[in-house]
Amino acid sequence: MYRYKITLEYIGLGYHGWQRQKESISLQEVIENAIFSFSKEKAILIVAGRTDSGVHAYGQVAHFDLNKFYEPTTLMKSINHFVRPHTIGVVSAEQVDLQFHARFSAKSRHYVYKILNRRSINIINSGFQYWIRDDLDVKKIQQAANFLVGKHDFTSFRASGCQSHSSIKTLDTVNVSRSEDTIEIVISAQSFLYNMVRNIIGSLILVGIGKWEATKIKKILEAKDRKLAGPTAPAYGLYFLRVEY
Amino acid sequence: MYRYKITLEYIGLGYHGWQRQKESISLQEVIENAIFSFSKEKAILIVAGRTDSGVHAYGQVAHFDLNKFYEPTTLMKSINHFVRPHTIGVVSAEQVDLQFHARFSAKSRHYVYKILNRRSINIINSGFQYWIRDDLDVKKIQQAANFLVGKHDFTSFRASGCQSHSSIKTLDTVNVSRSEDTIEIVISAQSFLYNMVRNIIGSLILVGIGKWEATKIKKILEAKDRKLAGPTAPAYGLYFLRVEY
Repeated sequence: MYRYKITLEYIGLGYHGWQRQKESISLQEVIENAIFSFSKEKAILIVAGRTDSGVHAYGQVAHFDLNKFYEPTTLMKSINHFVRPHTIGVVSAEQVDLQFHARFSAKSRHYVYKILNRRSINIINSGFQYWIRDDLDVKKIQQAANFLVGKHDFTSFRASGCQSHSSIKTLDTVNVSRSEDTIEIVISAQSFLYNMVRNIIGSLILVGIGKWEATKIKKILEAKDRKLAGPTAPAYGLYFLRVEY
Repeated sequence: MYRYKITLEYIGLGYHGWQRQKESISLQEVIENAIFSFSKEKAILIVAGRTDSGVHAYGQVAHFDLNKFYEPTTLMKSINHFVRPHTIGVVSAEQVDLQFHARFSAKSRHYVYKILNRRSINIINSGFQYWIRDDLDVKKIQQAANFLVGKHDFTSFRASGCQSHSSIKTLDTVNVSRSEDTIEIVISAQSFLYNMVRNIIGSLILVGIGKWEATKIKKILEAKDRKLAGPTAPAYGLYFLRVEY
């Protein structure tokens, strides 16, 4: 048996998220089907970050096992051939040893949230950046985000459907930057709770537009009450950026 | 009669270019129809740069006249409402005096060509960046481009269908830059010949991958022979960036 690690780029639009489901199309199913097309083996993909419906990825990582050996480059090209016309591509592939686990071996996961911040309508990046008309104060967003860095109980930013047995997570970094009209928030941790990134972003935006003080984020965190946090930011602004092992 | 200047962002994919045609959908027709929807006036749009099929725009400018006065913001919102679901948006609007002409008053037009330069397949930016696998040497592209700056006879970079009476144009600047995997070439002039930007880019790419020496661009320019230049770069990497008046 051979284990393969693949790095994936995809547009999340049109898929009901990563995880295979009975009645709707998932990224996992589409890629597993592509692997079956040439290998005739029913591989099961284990992924680093099970992204939600509509979330994109630049550097998602998954592993799977096959009985037959393939040159990683051949494997990559074959998946990319059979996955067409889906908006999914393998950007690199390698053979790894059987101890490697895309989910449990991950040391650090990085997400980026992209915001288009201007008065004018979003056309070219609609579906790829969340459009916010009100001026966002990047410094205040960074101040607010700094309260979240470190080991905390993230109950306030956890979705009701979250299956994690603990709500304690360690946020490594949150970096907020602006380049012309585009604001990017890069958020890094070993692991996240369900919808945690989008719930944090939704709250940070309220700070950015001046509706909330930066210190309110600290109070929300300490209250451990989901009702206090802001709305969940839309999925299409979020990208799974990369993962380190 | 009132004259209005609108600045447009659009995704060129799916339109047969700017100019109204009998049998295929154009950006001009779609926007003129949107204006008619609320004004019941058959406005005719005059544009700064008549982009080809598939070319995008961040800051295209057009003007048109209406008998009725509209607040520019209202006009913008109305067009944006009625132009849906097309991938076209008015990003700003103003009333201008009747001497203003979107095409003939233009002092400087700027285009940007976007290239994704990496081995891996292009997914998220497919349709928005031209994917080139071979390593591009940005310094050599810049060296080659510098031969084109200034007043020259651009016959070698002119498409056969070009209706301009002169092939003499003055290229103001060409700036080549790389940010990670993305290469952007910004090219500025008061006006261009038909397909001139894409023909120049196609030749610069051959220099970038090392197939041609940078000095070959000078020879091609001096030869005034279209057959010597490289292929026309694909439309979907090109954006009409902005125009100055």
